[in-house]
Amino acid sequence: MPQGEGGGRVGFPFVGIPSFLGSAICTDLDSLDADIAVLGAPTDEGSPFMPGSRFGARSIREHSLRFVTDGRGYYDPRARRRFLEREMVEGRIADVGDADVLPTNVVDTFANITALTRGVIERGAMPVALGGDHAITYPVVRAFEGEEPFHVVHFDAHIDYMPFVHGLEFTSYVSVDIDVLDMSLIPGCVSAEPDGMSYAELRDAMLAVAERTRVIGLDLVEVNPLLDVRTGLTSYLAAHIVVESLGRICDQPWWRERR
Amino acid sequence: MPQGEGGGRVGFPFVGIPSFLGSAICTDLDSLDADIAVLGAPTDEGSPFMPGSRFGARSIREHSLRFVTDGRGYYDPRARRRFLEREMVEGRIADVGDADVLPTNVVDTFANITALTRGVIERGAMPVALGGDHAITYPVVRAFEGEEPFHVVHFDAHIDYMPFVHGLEFTSYVSVDIDVLDMSLIPGCVSAEPDGMSYAELRDAMLAVAERTRVIGLDLVEVNPLLDVRTGLTSYLAAHIVVESLGRICDQPWWRERR
Amino acid sequence: MPQGEGGGRVGFPFVGIPSFLGSAICTDLDSLDADIAVLGAPTDEGSPFMPGSRFGARSIREHSLRFVTDGRGYYDPRARRRFLEREMVEGRIADVGDADVLPTNVVDTFANITALTRGVIERGAMPVALGGDHAITYPVVRAFEGEEPFHVVHFDAHIDYMPFVHGLEFTSYVSVDIDVLDMSLIPGCVSAEPDGMSYAELRDAMLAVAERTRVIGLDLVEVNPLLDVRTGLTSYLAAHIVVESLGRICDQPWWRERR
Amino acid sequence: MPQGEGGGRVGFPFVGIPSFLGSAICTDLDSLDADIAVLGAPTDEGSPFMPGSRFGARSIREHSLRFVTDGRGYYDPRARRRFLEREMVEGRIADVGDADVLPTNVVDTFANITALTRGVIERGAMPVALGGDHAITYPVVRAFEGEEPFHVVHFDAHIDYMPFVHGLEFTSYVSVDIDVLDMSLIPGCVSAEPDGMSYAELRDAMLAVAERTRVIGLDLVEVNPLLDVRTGLTSYLAAHIVVESLGRICDQPWWRERR
Amino acid sequence: MPQGEGGGRVGFPFVGIPSFLGSAICTDLDSLDADIAVLGAPTDEGSPFMPGSRFGARSIREHSLRFVTDGRGYYDPRARRRFLEREMVEGRIADVGDADVLPTNVVDTFANITALTRGVIERGAMPVALGGDHAITYPVVRAFEGEEPFHVVHFDAHIDYMPFVHGLEFTSYVSVDIDVLDMSLIPGCVSAEPDGMSYAELRDAMLAVAERTRVIGLDLVEVNPLLDVRTGLTSYLAAHIVVESLGRICDQPWWRERR
Amino acid sequence: MPQGEGGGRVGFPFVGIPSFLGSAICTDLDSLDADIAVLGAPTDEGSPFMPGSRFGARSIREHSLRFVTDGRGYYDPRARRRFLEREMVEGRIADVGDADVLPTNVVDTFANITALTRGVIERGAMPVALGGDHAITYPVVRAFEGEEPFHVVHFDAHIDYMPFVHGLEFTSYVSVDIDVLDMSLIPGCVSAEPDGMSYAELRDAMLAVAERTRVIGLDLVEVNPLLDVRTGLTSYLAAHIVVESLGRICDQPWWRERR
Repeated sequence: MPQGEGGGRVGFPFVGIPSFLGSAICTDLDSLDADIAVLGAPTDEGSPFMPGSRFGARSIREHSLRFVTDGRGYYDPRARRRFLEREMVEGRIADVGDADVLPTNVVDTFANITALTRGVIERGAMPVALGGDHAITYPVVRAFEGEEPFHVVHFDAHIDYMPFVHGLEFTSYVSVDIDVLDMSLIPGCVSAEPDGMSYAELRDAMLAVAERTRVIGLDLVEVNPLLDVRTGLTSYLAAHIVVESLGRICDQPWWRERR
Repeated sequence: MPQGEGGGRVGFPFVGIPSFLGSAICTDLDSLDADIAVLGAPTDEGSPFMPGSRFGARSIREHSLRFVTDGRGYYDPRARRRFLEREMVEGRIADVGDADVLPTNVVDTFANITALTRGVIERGAMPVALGGDHAITYPVVRAFEGEEPFHVVHFDAHIDYMPFVHGLEFTSYVSVDIDVLDMSLIPGCVSAEPDGMSYAELRDAMLAVAERTRVIGLDLVEVNPLLDVRTGLTSYLAAHIVVESLGRICDQPWWRERR
Repeated sequence: MPQGEGGGRVGFPFVGIPSFLGSAICTDLDSLDADIAVLGAPTDEGSPFMPGSRFGARSIREHSLRFVTDGRGYYDPRARRRFLEREMVEGRIADVGDADVLPTNVVDTFANITALTRGVIERGAMPVALGGDHAITYPVVRAFEGEEPFHVVHFDAHIDYMPFVHGLEFTSYVSVDIDVLDMSLIPGCVSAEPDGMSYAELRDAMLAVAERTRVIGLDLVEVNPLLDVRTGLTSYLAAHIVVESLGRICDQPWWRERR
Repeated sequence: MPQGEGGGRVGFPFVGIPSFLGSAICTDLDSLDADIAVLGAPTDEGSPFMPGSRFGARSIREHSLRFVTDGRGYYDPRARRRFLEREMVEGRIADVGDADVLPTNVVDTFANITALTRGVIERGAMPVALGGDHAITYPVVRAFEGEEPFHVVHFDAHIDYMPFVHGLEFTSYVSVDIDVLDMSLIPGCVSAEPDGMSYAELRDAMLAVAERTRVIGLDLVEVNPLLDVRTGLTSYLAAHIVVESLGRICDQPWWRERR
Repeated sequence: MPQGEGGGRVGFPFVGIPSFLGSAICTDLDSLDADIAVLGAPTDEGSPFMPGSRFGARSIREHSLRFVTDGRGYYDPRARRRFLEREMVEGRIADVGDADVLPTNVVDTFANITALTRGVIERGAMPVALGGDHAITYPVVRAFEGEEPFHVVHFDAHIDYMPFVHGLEFTSYVSVDIDVLDMSLIPGCVSAEPDGMSYAELRDAMLAVAERTRVIGLDLVEVNPLLDVRTGLTSYLAAHIVVESLGRICDQPWWRERR
Repeated sequence: MPQGEGGGRVGFPFVGIPSFLGSAICTDLDSLDADIAVLGAPTDEGSPFMPGSRFGARSIREHSLRFVTDGRGYYDPRARRRFLEREMVEGRIADVGDADVLPTNVVDTFANITALTRGVIERGAMPVALGGDHAITYPVVRAFEGEEPFHVVHFDAHIDYMPFVHGLEFTSYVSVDIDVLDMSLIPGCVSAEPDGMSYAELRDAMLAVAERTRVIGLDLVEVNPLLDVRTGLTSYLAAHIVVESLGRICDQPWWRERR
């Protein structure tokens, strides 16, 4: 243990190999023992305009480190309390790396994404998939086939119905296309649109889903770090919504009972 | 093992959490068992102009993945053969992560760099330190105190003597400031200068050092990914010289005997 | 017809030489037969700070392709219907290229802009002028001299009166300086200001003008692609407002009667 | 006087060596005779993620020139009148340059900032300090030790209490971290957050402070031009809030009496 | 003819819809009547690292306009004479637009590229294909099946044999991966390598091929404008080598006889 | 004098309002007392492609600070000695700011440049003009009308004769278009070309001119900081050649006698 006096690392976010929230990296699923498992799906072959979201998962991981200063969860200044404290202190979050990608071979790439997601589910962890482009939602969702029926809650700028969901009492899968946010917030998202949601609107909708349904999975897509502004605002915002969503999911009674 | 048929991952460089050359991450030095150990020293507080080289180690790791397509070493088209094959196949390279950094506290940051380097040496591995700015050479070199005497071979644009070294028969430590290269090659190096070395000149000098001395350590500094061009050429070139240097070091008779 | 089976091109926006909405290019005005004619005025010599809006027309054309996936108008998810369907299917939109520009010679450059606009008007088409900087409005507007009297509706962040116009029953000319939008939306507009209009406010104002007046021309200025973020958000938003405005103009009873 | 006919310079903001608002540069404090003195504190060593705000003061100065077209104050289109007219016409604003910075030596750097601020106070001018990162507030504030008691009004995204202040009847020091604004407005601020204040909210809060307290100093921090978008929106917005705040401070009865 | 007095356009390269060398756009191959036909193949699905070369053809066309100031060929300052004068004056160069691309469907995309290239050949023109990534060479080359046997001369950084070719007396196809140039010259090429060719070396090799063989086609790949430096140096250099190659090809006796 | 102990400022290049080499700013020519006077000519209206070199003078001044660490000249590691020591210690270099620019009014802008240059000459100082685009050479050169006859030595990529000059025994004016350098060195110069001079070649040619002629003025043009890479390499290189040229000019016997 070479670092510092008294043991603890300070952990500034520019230090270290970036796994999601600085969690342990576990690429051998047979040994996975976690409540939440983050996986990357770094493919953007379906991009209809500018590509590059294949680098999204890597960059979201990097910006997720900004929420980990002492390894004891993250502090929410609005709620004035910590979230994810137990999960981070007890190491209940794991990063299982990326599904392997075979350029020009969508079938096998998607099979890899499904297999990795399925492996996570079978080990009893909730999968959190980071894209990649919006196409990855399909191979992630089909990994849940055979599980109990569930709803897919989809946040996306390009679908012609309301993103907000209420009154659910069932399990859901939540899929977030970062382009649901207003284009002013996501300069590194090629499919950004005007008149999008504010961050507060997306957060509140996510929290409502977390409180009213049993969330069994989460994905977030369409972050393009190659084209983002230099400060990485889009990746940071993506990490922000994932971390905040996980915090609220893990704060539900059913989650605490599940442990 | 969820990926692909027949087991092997394809391993494109945009896939996966980026450790150096995709090697195993070992942050617990007590369990380190490797011939080469890569460590990051992500500090740039001594930067006299534009800062940002604190992100150099992370970016060099990412670009190092471009040399690993099948996990069996890298192929050198000039020499028409593979290098580092044994090291990569047998897992003799490890990535031990970054020394912890305490902004504004240079003394403790440097102590952490020295301690991490020292830990690597004591476990019998050759340390490869990725900066960070040029100041990190000092805490890395002092980690060798108490070892047998050695030469420091320094490649830097800003020192008033010849970088090339010949006729050595001793052990050395090799320190490369990427700014020794011509400024046309390193748009992401703030201290770049005109009339620098070509890549071929640096490579040949490095290979000469590898062949004529027992290299016991290596560092590379002054890569600033925040300001580099979008394709990351400076990080790629830094990875290139480190990988090529390691390939030649591990190809020496004394290295093979050491194993 | 070399493309695909069954004839039709798929038409992703990264494919093809970018004319506005992929319309036919007609640089010989004598043969112009269209209801709407788009022209570029690529000059930025009056820029009081950072130049580069001379590339605005070219980039807006490129981003306009994002609204043309099947050549049958564009779909408005808010209104849940298509617009510009007849205009695009029947080829009633033409791109007449750019007015020629003579750097340092404003008088002749402006004469060229006026002549090209005038030519469009004389062929019975509505001119849509893409800048260039805000100075081009003058040579565009004067091309209407001799026509029936009209109002100029000017959206601009830097004029000290309300941009919204109501109760008009006359013809207008509509001029949009993209800097009327809030600076968070237009990172590639040098004259952006805080406290600007939201996109919804600009769109609603534009639609109100389209519904209450006979719009006889349109210009849009101050998009600077050289300095925009890499995803081209400012150009996209500019294309968005032009396309949406044209859709509503062509949806008015007087327009349909005119045909 | 080589410029133009009739004497006056036109003064476009891309012309000239950029002092704040084009004011006279006075680096010898013994000769300082001004009501407002702008100073830079170009240090970013405390930055917990991406550095570069050391270039903030220089860039804010550059963008401040956009408010000076004729040297007779700036025109506020909302209030429909000029502000800072007397200050600019009579040369009551000075730029005293930057405090000297010693990288890795925070103690002496902070001593320099305090000394420069103190020197300004002792010459009877109100200091306006441009950062640099948020840490510079401390050495600026301590320069007021020994003066009458005052409040520090702190606008910052990362402090867990309301930024708005009301009912004050005392003197204050006002400190603005640009990250208090919504992240959509400040692409060049690394610590930007979602759900921040709009510019109008910050401006109104600033104006309220200016009207209800005797403002005796001002600082603005966390602008990072190295990573900003190419149009420099973050620097421009920072200059905007400083200029608008100064305009309102100098418009108060107590300020006019002080002269 | 609305432009200027005396008729001629000045034709600065920021003016106009960018076809290659400003040549006539002919998307209906049945009416193609040209000696040289430029086509785009905007696909980058095979990219093993950072994507974006799908925008290469569009950007190379834009930069090709820098060689056309008066429409009378381009002037070579080294040779002190004009090239391509007859071709440009008589309109013997055409731009046939892009092959249609179907993301994730490589088979049909390649079929489209082959069909468009084949159509050009059948109309008697020499195809010049602009990528896109290096994979497009295959569908372009197979379009020549059934023609007389030919050599493929391949310039590429990643193939293990000498790029220079001499003593040929046959027809060839020339394929240029821009990454054959030294990485210092091509910041917008992701596959750039150190120790590449200088521009002079590539040009001389190209000219030797042009002089010693009957060149029947040309492609150029791997230009990534999304990631290039803001001045577009990589696209400019790509346009440079294509224009200069065409100039020398059209200067050969066999070419002049062919007309 | 608030800075440091013992008086002297450390003077890192990110500190301070950037005049050329940190020299005194003298905008009142009547009081000018210097051997060398640097002036800016920030106009780019003649730019035939991408504009922005109007910001060149400002950025070259900023990068010139990198040569001033202790105010005692700059150290040339090749010559192993200092240059400009007397000039800097005794304050014989002044920065007279920028000629005023009137966009779209080339005649008056050029008159201002000529007047400012003429004013410098009349005060007995050697003018060093920083552009701006290549057009500024004309108004600078005509300021010497009425002086003794002189040669103009022009370094430019776009003129069809050899840049190197030898055997001169007369006075000259030296004009450097930064595009004379190879494009790999100047990513922020829009008119960059391949096969340009190396820095060593330009420097040696400049030094030869300095040694063999009486240089009476210098200009440097075509640096575009808006489009340069983030590290500002092009501005740095421009500052480098100006500083190095001045060092050699001031080292000539005739210069020392002139004092």
